[in-house]
Amino acid sequence: MKATIERATLLKSLGHVQSVVERRNTIPILSNVLIEATPEGTLRLMATDLDLQIVEAVPAAVDQPGATTVSAHTLFDIARKLPEGSQVQLSAAEGKMQVVAGRARFNLQTLPKDDFPMIAEGELPTRFELPAETLKQLIDKTRFAISTEETRYYLNGIFFHVQDEGSPVLKAAATDGHRLARVTIARPDGAEGMPDIIIPRKCVGELRKLLDEVDGSVDITLSSTKIRFGLGTAILTSKLIDGTFPDYNRVIPTANDKLLKIDPKSFMEGVDRVATIASEKTRAVKMALDRDKITLSVTSPENGTAAEEVPGDYAAPGFEIGFNARYLLDILGQIDGDTVEVHLADAAAPTLIRENDKAPALYVLMPMRV
Amino acid sequence: MKATIERATLLKSLGHVQSVVERRNTIPILSNVLIEATPEGTLRLMATDLDLQIVEAVPAAVDQPGATTVSAHTLFDIARKLPEGSQVQLSAAEGKMQVVAGRARFNLQTLPKDDFPMIAEGELPTRFELPAETLKQLIDKTRFAISTEETRYYLNGIFFHVQDEGSPVLKAAATDGHRLARVTIARPDGAEGMPDIIIPRKCVGELRKLLDEVDGSVDITLSSTKIRFGLGTAILTSKLIDGTFPDYNRVIPTANDKLLKIDPKSFMEGVDRVATIASEKTRAVKMALDRDKITLSVTSPENGTAAEEVPGDYAAPGFEIGFNARYLLDILGQIDGDTVEVHLADAAAPTLIRENDKAPALYVLMPMRV
Repeated sequence: MKATIERATLLKSLGHVQSVVERRNTIPILSNVLIEATPEGTLRLMATDLDLQIVEAVPAAVDQPGATTVSAHTLFDIARKLPEGSQVQLSAAEGKMQVVAGRARFNLQTLPKDDFPMIAEGELPTRFELPAETLKQLIDKTRFAISTEETRYYLNGIFFHVQDEGSPVLKAAATDGHRLARVTIARPDGAEGMPDIIIPRKCVGELRKLLDEVDGSVDITLSSTKIRFGLGTAILTSKLIDGTFPDYNRVIPTANDKLLKIDPKSFMEGVDRVATIASEKTRAVKMALDRDKITLSVTSPENGTAAEEVPGDYAAPGFEIGFNARYLLDILGQIDGDTVEVHLADAAAPTLIRENDKAPALYVLMPMRV
Repeated sequence: MKATIERATLLKSLGHVQSVVERRNTIPILSNVLIEATPEGTLRLMATDLDLQIVEAVPAAVDQPGATTVSAHTLFDIARKLPEGSQVQLSAAEGKMQVVAGRARFNLQTLPKDDFPMIAEGELPTRFELPAETLKQLIDKTRFAISTEETRYYLNGIFFHVQDEGSPVLKAAATDGHRLARVTIARPDGAEGMPDIIIPRKCVGELRKLLDEVDGSVDITLSSTKIRFGLGTAILTSKLIDGTFPDYNRVIPTANDKLLKIDPKSFMEGVDRVATIASEKTRAVKMALDRDKITLSVTSPENGTAAEEVPGDYAAPGFEIGFNARYLLDILGQIDGDTVEVHLADAAAPTLIRENDKAPALYVLMPMRV
């Protein structure tokens, strides 16, 4: 293998693929990136952690096609430090890969390309496209609610499923048992008959980073066990979580009769301020509703008390309810408009939060005893 | 106590003082900031860790003079989150301090002001001024060499001493046994007869941060046990390290007869690049000198090899020497000019590095076996 590539191109592409590689690996080749120079004048870079795989193809001047594998983080660190604007020559021979740029040359240990594990995609019968912007929204408005509890592995990702509710829809949902986030969009062409899938958190994170560099649409193909995202020059393939996502519709309240309308920005700032003195552990904020006077407060045995009034629009009987400030801030941070609707029932019942009944996103938050 | 202060003024000043407060304290009052509203219309904020103390006075509208103490980090976090441009009302009564700004109000736990520990400065007979820029240079060019080994507590700071070498000078030096950094400046008026002192690392760090906001001169007063820096509105007082700094002159080589002149920027970039593959532990880089060809190289059993030639100016007999890349980069990062002089003797002898023989800063680096 022998190829020459611009340092900036190599660096950008390695930036994408090395991020999939775990820092610590018991299987040595999982630390490596597979580099393949093709006769068509491209360099293909591939990395995997056995559950998630990324392949990116970038233009290069290929003198001699071939492939090898070297440490992904080391090659990325080298590329970062090479002089700006330099041409990088990569050549592999006799168990080594040589990297030459400017006056610097590196001879890196390699591992055989044939040992590099590939995820067998199998058949991916469902295929549809989503605008990159839409996919970003689906992720941003749900991922904060993904559970980190490893024992509830079926909650460690975003659940995607299609449904027919008058019109066909695609829904993305995540929950950790304390809060639920769900976004609904029109079902894209090709997604009919799509199996229910749970996309793991790491795939969601890598996908989200790559989306920042994608204009236009993302090509999605999937089966009940694998998903593949075509993102311009990069292809991300992931195993799906083999589990059953709970029937989350049960926890979405439908009869909450107390409606608060409030400016999400003032609400968020008020919660953030009073939460300053809340104990790290509970982060509990009390909200007292009394007509249009919404009082947020925190009492901390160590620190003292904090209170802030936020104007709101509330006509139902007054009462008090407590929330985890962190969870409330996560949700309010995703509200784009000038008003948010908070649908309450009582101090012990799940609360529904959404911009309005037309908004694609909907959030459910469990209250805390305060 | 009752006073009103601009949020921006309070925030900036709390930013300075809270930084002295340790995150964990076994003595509760050390977590607090002492706030004193004076009849002269200032708010004095004071924090301490018993070794280092900061006092800052800022303008405020004082309705009722008085003082109290509250958690420094909590008050800082509150000030950060208060609305920009708001006026903050502080009032203390009955064991609480109330903070009111906009629609938010906080009632914070206090501890009695009389329990707040002050560092007894005693007599500070030596007094001189240094331009803030000069003091920054003294710190920046030496602090990286301060030892972090707690057992060698007398190396955990910067050593300042005056000397007469034809003309009177003030020297700042730091060493960790592997490298030594020393800066020499003309002795400022008033520093004659100054005792030898070691300024502890934490004081150096806080001082350096404050210097970024100081124009003009810093007023320095000291005894053999305490030092006090007057920095505009802030006063930093520190205990000095009670120990004897070793006679570091012994390790400054005077007969190194092999001189390499080299561009510090290319040298630094070359070292940084080849060090990419060095093992985290040793960070060893080999430098082979052969006339004007300086070859930097690293061999790593895990990663492979790296080499880079850097043009230099070297006429003495060729040889090889090894250095810790991190230490070499620390030193080269402090060289401002286009050329650095590297005075070598042999592969086992301390190496002298300086911009030239007129430069105020001088560095000694112990080689490594490679």
